[in-house]
Amino acid sequence: MNAGAGFNALSMPDFTRTFPGPFHISPHADRTEQYLLQWVGQVPLMPLSDECRSLCAITGHGVARTLPSADPDSLALCAALFCWLTAFDDMHGETVAARAPAVLMGLVAELTLVLADDAPSEVSAEPFAAALQDLLARFRARATAAQYLRLTGRLRDNLTGIVWEAHQLANPTGVSVATYCAMRPHTVFVRTLFAAVEILLQYQLTDEERSSPSVRKLETATANLAGWINDLGSYARESVRSAALSLPAVLMNEHGHSPEKVFGQISRLCEQQAEIARSRIAELSSAGSAPVRAHAIALTHIAESFLWHISHHRYQA
Amino acid sequence: MNAGAGFNALSMPDFTRTFPGPFHISPHADRTEQYLLQWVGQVPLMPLSDECRSLCAITGHGVARTLPSADPDSLALCAALFCWLTAFDDMHGETVAARAPAVLMGLVAELTLVLADDAPSEVSAEPFAAALQDLLARFRARATAAQYLRLTGRLRDNLTGIVWEAHQLANPTGVSVATYCAMRPHTVFVRTLFAAVEILLQYQLTDEERSSPSVRKLETATANLAGWINDLGSYARESVRSAALSLPAVLMNEHGHSPEKVFGQISRLCEQQAEIARSRIAELSSAGSAPVRAHAIALTHIAESFLWHISHHRYQA
Repeated sequence: MNAGAGFNALSMPDFTRTFPGPFHISPHADRTEQYLLQWVGQVPLMPLSDECRSLCAITGHGVARTLPSADPDSLALCAALFCWLTAFDDMHGETVAARAPAVLMGLVAELTLVLADDAPSEVSAEPFAAALQDLLARFRARATAAQYLRLTGRLRDNLTGIVWEAHQLANPTGVSVATYCAMRPHTVFVRTLFAAVEILLQYQLTDEERSSPSVRKLETATANLAGWINDLGSYARESVRSAALSLPAVLMNEHGHSPEKVFGQISRLCEQQAEIARSRIAELSSAGSAPVRAHAIALTHIAESFLWHISHHRYQA
Repeated sequence: MNAGAGFNALSMPDFTRTFPGPFHISPHADRTEQYLLQWVGQVPLMPLSDECRSLCAITGHGVARTLPSADPDSLALCAALFCWLTAFDDMHGETVAARAPAVLMGLVAELTLVLADDAPSEVSAEPFAAALQDLLARFRARATAAQYLRLTGRLRDNLTGIVWEAHQLANPTGVSVATYCAMRPHTVFVRTLFAAVEILLQYQLTDEERSSPSVRKLETATANLAGWINDLGSYARESVRSAALSLPAVLMNEHGHSPEKVFGQISRLCEQQAEIARSRIAELSSAGSAPVRAHAIALTHIAESFLWHISHHRYQA
């Protein structure tokens, strides 16, 4: 793996023992990318720029690793949701939002009404709200009541994460490492992916299984790994901005360390989370119920898709 | 009813035909108020000021009208949740937040982690986060998975509503009547009350019942009535502030009408919503399943508690 031009000297984690690959991939990867290109243009979420084509490529091929055995419709739906989230963050979050938070809050309010399911039944004129209405209807048709409520809860957490991040960008040194790490799963959308795949792969944990220490530890380790590896991968791209919020940035600020030192620290942290995830996957795959085994396999593929995606050129400086 | 000193000339709605009273009230109203006074001080959410005593009185006696037949524990839990929401809004939302939105977002992020159920298991040091952990554990012990997810979804909507309102206060004339009315149920917490009573009274609608036109119309009418009657009741108190967001304010701004004219308009709108609610209550009480009948009665009491509470001295100028 390569953290981008000019950052070759920074250490990156070694997953050859925990997630050695080759990673499974769906035969429908290219088809999913083509679907996304068509969908993004139709909705339309963003202009068909190189950035948009790159987003469709990484999302299509990433989801093909998240759901290697799923049918084309499930891949398309999952890819569209994560394309929607990333496009919203790119177009309306981060630095755009930091300059005009009230504008972002107006949009988030409109999306909240769609998530809360008490919006007027006519289709919204705002493209992100209209696209979300369509996506949620497609998920709802496949989900139990609890699965659907869990997904819409996670999406609300993502919107709160985007708004929170926009407000902290003016003063990123005010964010502690502990707070950053707690919020990171919501800004990287990984728990939303847990909720989506549970619907798309048609399994459901009992409340007892979901709150068991092994399942919680697997979810926490996978969520941490997803956010931290993304931060290492996007550091080169983001460090050209004056005030990016990332684990390297908050660690450097809190402890006064160099980029070389924090990359080493975070690489070790990522390897530790990968080890925790791998050992829980082994435990749950052998001892769990059928839904718990399905969950362990689903989270393996989610971890692999996050490990894969930082090598994509979207993450090269 | 009396909209407060100096506003006696403004018309108020007439509910003598739709909600004639006397409203049912629990025999545990005073006990619930006493519980709240003790709880708010223990947690502690706010100093034991006259404002705090007034909040405990109106919440205790309001919840005694919302749940006239419930046991003291259910009353206490419901009252504590709505005291928590109102105290958070009073202490950290509205004008306080409008001056420092990043501080509010830091708190909302912490509460989101509690709602998202991936906060560290130790009790938070922040009083509102610690109190929310305790309240959610008590609700969770009584709820099905879907009921609990619905409640935590509504609470997320309330936090988004508080943040949205804080961001619009700098430019309240930018908020349309349509947007204001769509967001109002979330800033008045009424749909959270729907979710809470469904847990406390131990009934559950099927997905089909919940999405039926009659149930949705009853919920929408009750939600509108709650927000709009609250706006009429608090206008006198709020109009001393420079930039309050309320239905009278947004209507005056959008149409250039006088306070007398918009109070007349809103009074008619409230009476219309009360009529819709009353006719749906009659329909569902005679034709619905046992849970649908329970829901119709629960919403009757919720509407009555909102109609009652604007006569409380908290709402007098």
